[in-house]
Order: sequence, then structure tokens, then C-alpha cells
Amino acid sequence: MRDNTLLYEGKAKKLYTTDDPKILRVVYLDQATALNGIRKDIVQGKAVLNNQITSLIFEHFKQNGVKNHFIEKISKHEQLVEALKMIPLEVVVRNVSAGSFAKRLAIPEGQLLEFPVLEFYYKDDNLDDPIINDDHVKILKIATEKEIDTIKEEAYKINQVLIELFKKVSIRLIDFKIEFGKNNDRTILLADEITPDTCRLWDEKTNDHLDKDVYRRNLGELIPVYQEVLDRLKQVPH
Amino acid sequence: MRDNTLLYEGKAKKLYTTDDPKILRVVYLDQATALNGIRKDIVQGKAVLNNQITSLIFEHFKQNGVKNHFIEKISKHEQLVEALKMIPLEVVVRNVSAGSFAKRLAIPEGQLLEFPVLEFYYKDDNLDDPIINDDHVKILKIATEKEIDTIKEEAYKINQVLIELFKKVSIRLIDFKIEFGKNNDRTILLADEITPDTCRLWDEKTNDHLDKDVYRRNLGELIPVYQEVLDRLKQVPH
Repeated sequence: MRDNTLLYEGKAKKLYTTDDPKILRVVYLDQATALNGIRKDIVQGKAVLNNQITSLIFEHFKQNGVKNHFIEKISKHEQLVEALKMIPLEVVVRNVSAGSFAKRLAIPEGQLLEFPVLEFYYKDDNLDDPIINDDHVKILKIATEKEIDTIKEEAYKINQVLIELFKKVSIRLIDFKIEFGKNNDRTILLADEITPDTCRLWDEKTNDHLDKDVYRRNLGELIPVYQEVLDRLKQVPH
Repeated sequence: MRDNTLLYEGKAKKLYTTDDPKILRVVYLDQATALNGIRKDIVQGKAVLNNQITSLIFEHFKQNGVKNHFIEKISKHEQLVEALKMIPLEVVVRNVSAGSFAKRLAIPEGQLLEFPVLEFYYKDDNLDDPIINDDHVKILKIATEKEIDTIKEEAYKINQVLIELFKKVSIRLIDFKIEFGKNNDRTILLADEITPDTCRLWDEKTNDHLDKDVYRRNLGELIPVYQEVLDRLKQVPH
């Protein structure tokens, strides 16, 4: 690849252009952050694990009717994805109360929610990614009413597919964060990643955290936990 | 009134029971607060002004099809209202960017919004009244989907009536906060107050603040400003 311009550097990956303007190269990083980047550590081996987990899940999505940006995994820590115009929203779906949600609303962590609760956060580091409602999404011109509907429908579908996938490997999907982008046809596609960095995953029997809360809350080593999630997902016939 | 139990003490008023279980007595206080009650001052004369302003506006609402809890003003600083089961929501409608909204979303103060933006805040002092979305309102069982629709419809109607009322006296309605309650028939009624404590009001020509921002931002004396709002409103034939 001759053209190798760094387009974006996130907390856990870098995005590069390729020869093909429709394709980007994602490089996963051995980096973990918390508190919106205030805490930051090198975690050797995380890139390779997250690249495998996201690739596996995005492939699974394609076989289950969830459109997404994933093209192919090209090395241990790299993948190719469709170039999209990203929508600056973090879309969170919650099945069980946990984390900031539990604290903000005083709903005890672990309490099952009667329906999946959907939240939008405005992806803007300068503003600390504030939680926003549908009116804010429209007034900020982040998305139209119709696009909001599509994003919500996709998010609920993704939730269902993920719940079923993780259930097969005895993991409860507590909540997750996803991001979307638009391609040249203005089709909205799931983008970014789905990994234990972006999901809360609890072991079905022990309720052990199998996700970044291990790092956020200093509960132990992160790599064995992410390896466990990958090993379990690999057991599922795809 | 024999029965005189203090039911609730808010930042700017007290609520007492009366002989009639369907009726409450509101006593306005000479008190101003900011920063969710952290700053607190005695402001002599505020109670009498806010009692007059709310009474005038709630009467105007009744003549313009906006149901509300107001019964009658019974003294300089007291009024009788219908006893309601309050819904723990602060409903905010914004026509122009200002205050916390401007800061949170980096929309410059004073920028006209293309449509009225509606926000819900969960009224809970322990949680610092967090901003919430419709899903949160439902999961917290604050209101059903149907009740949310009613609350929004009423809020937009109130916005229209208030914009027109204030326009007659050369005041721009920037934003306002309202609260609702349910009576025994489960009808949702506007309650609480509408005063320069709960609205942002800017003079149409000078953009001067005619509201509590004078106190919040230390822009001068509050009483002459509230008196000005009352004097102007009194000019409108009701």
C-alpha cells in the first residue's frame, strides 16, 4: 500500500487511507484507556485479540443481516473496512443496569431492564461526549429523524444478534456502544468495533466481568479475560 | 385554615395542605438559589412578584386552553392550587440557545434554534437532576409512552401561548422549565410556577436579561427586573 495517510487516531486504533478511496485500513493498538482518556496504559496483546474478536463478530453480523463496514482481516492487528462518513454519535444499548447508567439514575448495577434502553452520546472529546436526546441529534444536524429511526432499528437488531451469539457461549450481554457511518449511497452501516472494550460482558454463571471493566476497576489482568471471550466465541460454528 | 401541614419545601416556595384534600396552599418565598441550591440568598419582595406573575400567566393559560393547577391567588404571597401527584420531571423547552445547553453542546448563546428543543430532567436532588431521554422516563416509571406524548404536546402548546404572550410586551421567550402533575382522574395538568425564576426572558430590543440570570450571573438587582416583567404583563388585556 503506497498511500498510507493517517486519517484518525482513536483510543484503541488508528485509521489509514489505502490506494482505494473506498477502503480504509484499521490498525488495532495495544492500548487501554479509561475516564475518557485520562488513564492510559500499554496492554501488550490487546490489539491482536480485539482485531480477532471484532472480525469474528462483524463476519457473524454479515451472515445475520446486519450490514457493516468490515471487509477483511489482513494481519494480526489490521483489517480493511469500507470508508464511511462517520456519524458523531455513540449509540449505547443497555439490557442490564451498570456503570455510569447505574450511578446517574440510581438503578442498582445488575438490575435487569424491562426493555433495552437506548442512549445517544454526542461524540465530541472537547465536550466530554455529553448524553443527548433525539431533539439534540436533529438540532446539531448529526442525523435526520429518518436516520435516527434507522440507527435505532439497527441498534436493536444488533442487540438481538449479539445477545444470541453471546448466550451460546454462556455470556450475558449487559450493554454495548456502537458507532455508525454513511457510505456514498447514504446507506447507514455499523462501523467502529465490537470488542470487550465496547461491551459489558458478564459470565452467565459467575457474573465475572469479561470486559474492560477489569481494567477500569482494577479487577485483574485484561489479556486473559479478552482471550477467554475470543476462545469462547471461536467455539460457535459460524 | 385549620389543617396546615407543610407538604413540601422547594427552593422558592412551600406547599401546605388545606381543609380540602383536593386543594393545596402555595406560599412563595423571598429566596433565590443558583447552582442547584448551593448558592442561596434572601431577596426581599421576590415572593410577591412571582406570586403575581404566575397567577397572571396561569389565568391567561386557562383562557387559552392550557389546563393547569391554579385556582386563585389568596394573598400577596399565597395562592391555592389543585392537589396533584407530581411527575418528577423538569420539562425544558428551548427556542434559543442559552445557559447549560449552550455550554454542553457548544451552540453559541443567542443562536435561534430551528425548532423548539424539548428536554427532560429527572427531578431528584440526590442525583443532581440528570438530563434523561424518553427511554429513561419509561424505565424509571416516571411516565408511560402515552403520558410522555401528552406532556410533550402540552409543553409545545405552552411554548406557543407563552411566546405570543411575551411578544405582546416586547420580550423574547428564550427557554423555560415546567412541571406537571396528575389529578385523581389521571389528567395531566401543568403545575409548579412560571416566573422569571423558571424562564429565560430577553428584552426584544436590548437583549437584556429579564430573568434569574440577573442573579445567577450577578448582572444587577433582581427585584426591578421582575417588577418590569410584571408591569409589562399587566399591560396585556386579559
